[in-house]
Amino acid sequence: MKKIVVIGGGTGNFAVLRGLKNCNVDLSAIVSMADDGGSTGILRDELGVLPPGDVRQCLVALSNSSRLMRSLMNYRFENGGLGGHSFGNLLLSALEKVTGSFEKAVEEVGKIMYIRGKVIPVTTHQTRLKMILKDQRVLEGEKEIYLSKEIDQGYHTLYLEPYPQANKEALTEIQHADVVIVGPGGLHTSLIPNLLVEGIARALVESQAKKIFISNLMNRKGQTTGFCVSHYIQELVKFIGRDIFDFIIVNKEKPPKELIDIYAEEGKLVENDLVTDSRVVEADLLGAIAKPAGSDIIKRNLIRHDPYKLAQELMNIVNHI
Amino acid sequence: MKKIVVIGGGTGNFAVLRGLKNCNVDLSAIVSMADDGGSTGILRDELGVLPPGDVRQCLVALSNSSRLMRSLMNYRFENGGLGGHSFGNLLLSALEKVTGSFEKAVEEVGKIMYIRGKVIPVTTHQTRLKMILKDQRVLEGEKEIYLSKEIDQGYHTLYLEPYPQANKEALTEIQHADVVIVGPGGLHTSLIPNLLVEGIARALVESQAKKIFISNLMNRKGQTTGFCVSHYIQELVKFIGRDIFDFIIVNKEKPPKELIDIYAEEGKLVENDLVTDSRVVEADLLGAIAKPAGSDIIKRNLIRHDPYKLAQELMNIVNHI
Repeated sequence: MKKIVVIGGGTGNFAVLRGLKNCNVDLSAIVSMADDGGSTGILRDELGVLPPGDVRQCLVALSNSSRLMRSLMNYRFENGGLGGHSFGNLLLSALEKVTGSFEKAVEEVGKIMYIRGKVIPVTTHQTRLKMILKDQRVLEGEKEIYLSKEIDQGYHTLYLEPYPQANKEALTEIQHADVVIVGPGGLHTSLIPNLLVEGIARALVESQAKKIFISNLMNRKGQTTGFCVSHYIQELVKFIGRDIFDFIIVNKEKPPKELIDIYAEEGKLVENDLVTDSRVVEADLLGAIAKPAGSDIIKRNLIRHDPYKLAQELMNIVNHI
Repeated sequence: MKKIVVIGGGTGNFAVLRGLKNCNVDLSAIVSMADDGGSTGILRDELGVLPPGDVRQCLVALSNSSRLMRSLMNYRFENGGLGGHSFGNLLLSALEKVTGSFEKAVEEVGKIMYIRGKVIPVTTHQTRLKMILKDQRVLEGEKEIYLSKEIDQGYHTLYLEPYPQANKEALTEIQHADVVIVGPGGLHTSLIPNLLVEGIARALVESQAKKIFISNLMNRKGQTTGFCVSHYIQELVKFIGRDIFDFIIVNKEKPPKELIDIYAEEGKLVENDLVTDSRVVEADLLGAIAKPAGSDIIKRNLIRHDPYKLAQELMNIVNHI
C-alpha cells in the first residue's frame, strides 16, 4: 500500500483527503498550525491552546463516522459567550487541556471520529504567522494576512514567530512517503506556513517521494491577483529551496460563466501557463454545483474540486510510480 | 433481570448509579430538568436548550468509557467566554441543536460514553422551578431556591412553570419497574422537581414496583435544618400524595468528628428518628475520605455514600423481592 502524505490546512485540502479516504492508500495529513482567526483565534488567546480549526477540518474529511457526528464537529454555536465557536474546536481544546497534549487530543478525536489515516500537526509549538510588507508594515497573524489586499504588490518577508521546530512525526511521514501532495489551499496562509516550520522544507527536498502540486482553481484578489500555475510553483519553490514537483495537477474544466461572474469580486480563474511542461496533468476536476435553498450561497464553495475526480487523477499517478 | 429506576438529579444519585452500574440489573435514571444554575443556566438562557448538567452527571455515572472520556465530560473551561462551561454540557447542547431533540442528544452521548442503562429526562418541556415563600416572595429558579436560607421557615408553594407533561418514556419506565429508588439528593431542588412533573406522582403510586427511599447523609442549613429521616419522607409524601415507600435506607456509620466540624457551617447529620419503623434498613454506607492534594477540598464530597456499599444494600433488597 502506497504511503501518501498531504500537506496543507484550511478548507483547501478537504477535497483531496475526502477523495483519497476511500482509496487503498496509507494516508496522512500534515496540517498548518498558523490559523488564528475566528473560533480558533479566540481559543488560542483565551485558553492558550494550539489552533484546532484546520486539524478539525482534516479530521472531518477523513472521518468514517455518521453524518450526525460530522455535523456535530462542524456545528457552530450561535449565541452568547459560545457564539462562533465550532463544537469540534471545543472538543480538541478541552481534550488538549485534559490530556496536556494537542497531539494526544488529535489522536483521541481521530478515534471518536473513526478516521481513516492520520492527522499530524506540522508543529506542536505555539507560533504566529507574520508578514512584512514592502513598506515595512507588519501583518500580524494569519487572519490579518488572509484579509490583506496588498500582498500581490509583493512583500518583504513571510515567517513564523517564534521559529518552530517541526513535529518529528511530520518529518518521519515525509521521509517515508511514496507520494507527497501539496495544495490546493491558500498560498500564503495555508500552504507556505507548513514550509516555514524548521525542517519541513529540507525533509521535502530529501524525501524520495514523488511530489505532486495541485493547483488552486481561483486566484484571490489582492493576494494572488493574476497568478498563473507557474507563479504558485515559483512562490512555493522560494520557500522550499528547490523545484521538487514531479507532477502538477491542473483543472481544465471551465466553470459556467455565471459562477465566474459571481466570483469576480474575489478573484479570477488560475490560468495554466505551463502547457508545454511535461509534469502537468490536466483534467476535468470541478465539483457539481451545490445550489443551497434560499440565497445563503457560500461563494467559495461554488467553484471547487470534486473529491472523487481528484482522487482518480491522483491514483492514476500513484499506481504508476 | 430486575428493572430498577432511579429518580433524582444533581450529584445526589451519582453514588447510586455508579454502584448499580456493575450489578446485574436493568437500570434507568430519570433526571430532573429543573437545573438552571452555572453552565447549565447560561446554556438555557443563551441557546434555549434543555438543562444538560444533571443528565451529564448521570451519563458519567453510568459510563463504561475510559477515565479520559469521563474527565473530558466533566472538564470545565476556565477562561474567557467559555469560562465555567463543562464540556459535557456543551456536547449535549450542541447535539440538541444538531439533532433538534434533547432526548436524541442524550441517546447519542450515551453511545459515545458506552453507558450501562438509560438516562431519561423527566420531561422534555422547558420549565422553571419556583417557590413562593410564606411572605409571598417568589424564588425564581432552582439556583435561587438552592441558595436560599429561608426554606426551613416553611414555604407556601413549590411548583414548575409552565406545568410540564412527563416524558412518556419516564412514565413507562416507572410503570414497568420492579424497584424505584428515590434519593439521595437535594430535597427541594433535585428530588421534588421530578414529582412536580404532570403524571410522575401518579405513576409512582400506581406502579407495582417496590419503592426505596435513600436518606441524605447531611441536612442543608436554611433548607432542611434539623430534618430527621421522617421529615424527608413527609415532604416527599406531600408531593406524591401517599407514602409509597417500602424500604428506607439509612446510613448508621458515624463520620469522623473533624469532618462533621468542617461541615458545621453547611449543615448537620440527618438523624434517624424511625428506629421502630420496619421499613428502615440501617447500614454502614460512608465512602472513604478522599484527601485531595493541596487545600482544594470540596466539602460536599467529604461525607458521601460509598457506591459499592450502597449497591450491596440495594441488591440485598432487589434479590429478595
